[in-house]
Amino acid sequence: MRVGGVPRRAIEEAGDGRAVVIVDQTLLPGRFETARLATLDEVATAIRTMQVRGAPLIGVTAAYGMALGLAADPSDAGLERAAAVLRATRPTAINLAWALAAVADCVRPLPPAERAAAAWRTAGEMAEAEVAACEAIGRHGAALLQDVLAARGGAGPLNVLTHCNAGWLATVDWGTALAPVYRLHDEGVPLHVWVSETRPRNQGLLTAWELGEHGVPRTLVVDNAAGHLFQRGLVDLCLVGTDRTTRAGDVCNKIGTALKALAAHDARVPFYVAAPSSSIEWGLTDPGRIPIEERSALEVTGRLEVPAFNPGFDVTPARHVTALITERGVCPPSEAGLGALFPERIT
Amino acid sequence: MRVGGVPRRAIEEAGDGRAVVIVDQTLLPGRFETARLATLDEVATAIRTMQVRGAPLIGVTAAYGMALGLAADPSDAGLERAAAVLRATRPTAINLAWALAAVADCVRPLPPAERAAAAWRTAGEMAEAEVAACEAIGRHGAALLQDVLAARGGAGPLNVLTHCNAGWLATVDWGTALAPVYRLHDEGVPLHVWVSETRPRNQGLLTAWELGEHGVPRTLVVDNAAGHLFQRGLVDLCLVGTDRTTRAGDVCNKIGTALKALAAHDARVPFYVAAPSSSIEWGLTDPGRIPIEERSALEVTGRLEVPAFNPGFDVTPARHVTALITERGVCPPSEAGLGALFPERIT
Repeated sequence: MRVGGVPRRAIEEAGDGRAVVIVDQTLLPGRFETARLATLDEVATAIRTMQVRGAPLIGVTAAYGMALGLAADPSDAGLERAAAVLRATRPTAINLAWALAAVADCVRPLPPAERAAAAWRTAGEMAEAEVAACEAIGRHGAALLQDVLAARGGAGPLNVLTHCNAGWLATVDWGTALAPVYRLHDEGVPLHVWVSETRPRNQGLLTAWELGEHGVPRTLVVDNAAGHLFQRGLVDLCLVGTDRTTRAGDVCNKIGTALKALAAHDARVPFYVAAPSSSIEWGLTDPGRIPIEERSALEVTGRLEVPAFNPGFDVTPARHVTALITERGVCPPSEAGLGALFPERIT
Repeated sequence: MRVGGVPRRAIEEAGDGRAVVIVDQTLLPGRFETARLATLDEVATAIRTMQVRGAPLIGVTAAYGMALGLAADPSDAGLERAAAVLRATRPTAINLAWALAAVADCVRPLPPAERAAAAWRTAGEMAEAEVAACEAIGRHGAALLQDVLAARGGAGPLNVLTHCNAGWLATVDWGTALAPVYRLHDEGVPLHVWVSETRPRNQGLLTAWELGEHGVPRTLVVDNAAGHLFQRGLVDLCLVGTDRTTRAGDVCNKIGTALKALAAHDARVPFYVAAPSSSIEWGLTDPGRIPIEERSALEVTGRLEVPAFNPGFDVTPARHVTALITERGVCPPSEAGLGALFPERIT
C-alpha cells in the first residue's frame, strides 16, 4: 500500500541479500523510518520490542531471522538455537511457531552449507504467500462488504469498525482485515473506517496512519466508544484480524476484540474476521488452551505506581463471529465451515 | 474517605464562608492539591475543565457556584446569569440541572439581600444530603455484595469490576459505586477491585488512587480487558455509577459502561448500578433523548493530526442491569422497581 504516494511493504529484502529492511513501527505514527536487521538477535529484538508486529508479519520476519541465524551458524545446534530464540519472543500468534517449524523442516535435511540460502528462499516464498493470501482475502472480503452496502440500499459511505492493526503493517502488504477496505477504496466505493484506539499499545494509531496515507477516510475513537457507535447505528459492519483461530472458528485477537463482537452481536451488526489459514491452529478446538500473553504492567501504568494486569489478547467465541474471511473464500465460523474450504486440513 | 490516613471530602466550605475548597482532580493521581473557588466564574471553569467531576459533585459544586454568583450580583438578572453560566458547563449529568433549579427555586422568592446566604445554606444541605445518600447506598450495596460473596461460598476476596470514578472524588464523600466497597473493606471483608482505565480521561486512575489511599486492594486494567476478565471468571460482580437514569432504569454513564454491561450479561455476572435518586430523571422514559456530551477530539488524539470522535457517555439499557442501588434500597431497573421505592415520584 502507499506511503506518501509510494508503494511500500512492511518487510523487504535488502539489496545485498544479507539483511531485511523493516518499517520501525515503534516510531509510527509520529515518524516513518526503516531499520535494517542483519542478525538473528536483531530480528528477535525487533519482534520482542514490537518494531515489527502483527501475526503474519511476525511469522515472515521470524523466517528471515532463521535464515540470518543459519548464515552465522548453520549447524544443527545453530538451527535449534535460532528457533528457540525466536520462539521465545511472542507467545500468542500461531504464525510464529508455524513459520519456525516450516523453515526448520525445510533446512534440517540439507548439508549445513546450503541451509542459510534455503531458509532465505523459504522466507521469501512465505512473504509472497502472505501477500497472495491477503490479496485473496481482500477480494473475498470486498464482495462481502459490497453485499452489506447493497443490503442497506447502496448509499455510502459504508461504515466499517476495526480494532488494533490488521493492515499492511501487520502483514507484508494489503493486510488481512484492511485488505477488503483497500480494495473497495481503490475501486471507488465510498467507505469510512472507525478506528479503535487499542490500548495499551495504541495500534489503532497505526491503522489510522496507514489508512490516511492511502487516502481512506477514517475516524479515531477510544476503545470505550464501540458500544455507543453500534447503538446509534453508526457502524455497518465490524472487521478484525486474528492472531490464532481454532478449528471450531473461535478467534484469539487483540485484547478488546471480544467486547466489540459482543456489541456487534447485540446490535445485530455483522462481525467478520479476516483469517488467513496461517492463523488457524487446525489441531485446536478449545480456545481456553491458547496461551494469552501477559505483557508488562508498565504499558498500562506508565510511571504511576499502581498494580496493573495486562493481558494482550482475548478470545471471541465462534457464536459471536458472523463469518471468517480466508484466502480461499468466506465460511461460517465452524469446523464444517472451515472443512469445506480446507478439506485437506480437517479430516 | 482517607488520604494519607486523614479523612477528606471532595468539596468543603472555606473557613471564611466566602469560597469552597476542592480537590483539584486534574492533578491526580500525580499530585494531591486543593484549590479555592471564590467566584461564579471560578466554579464554572472548575466544572468545565474537570477540576471537579462526577455527577453528584458537579451538582453540589454548581449549587455553591450559585451562592457565589449571588454574593456578587443578587438581582433576578444575576440569578438567571449564574444559572445559565453553570448550566452550560457540562450537558449530560442530570444533577447539574437539578441542583441549579433547586437553588433558584429556593432563593427566587427572597429579597436580593438574603439570596446569597440562602443559596449557601441550600448548597450545604445538598452536600450533606449527597453524603447521606452515598452512605445509605453503601449500606444497601454492602448487603448485596455480601450476598454475592455468600453465594460463591464465602471465600474471598470478592472481585469487583468498576469503570470510571464513582468514588468519593465524584461525590462529596463515600462515593456511589465505591461506597459499598469502602463499607465492606472497613468491616474487614476481603475484596479486590478491578479498575478500568476509562479512556480518554483516565478517571480509572482517580479510582485506583482513592482506593489505594484508603487501603483497598485494586488492580488497574485497560478498558479492553473487561471481556477477558469476565470470560476467565475473574470478576464476581460489576459495580458502576450513573450520570443520568431514566424512570425505566436505563443508565447513562461514562463511555464504555455499556460494553462492560454486555460482557457481564454474557458471562452471567451481576451488573449493579449505584443510582442516587438525584441521578434519576423521573420524566424521562426514552434514553435516546439524553444529550450525549461530545468532548474535544484532542482528548483522544493528543497532538496527532487525525480526525477523532469523542462521545463522553453511553447508555446501558435496563435489560443489562441486574439491579439499581439507591439510597432507599435495591430495586429492579424498571418503572415498577423505582416506583416501589419512590412512590411519590412515579404516579
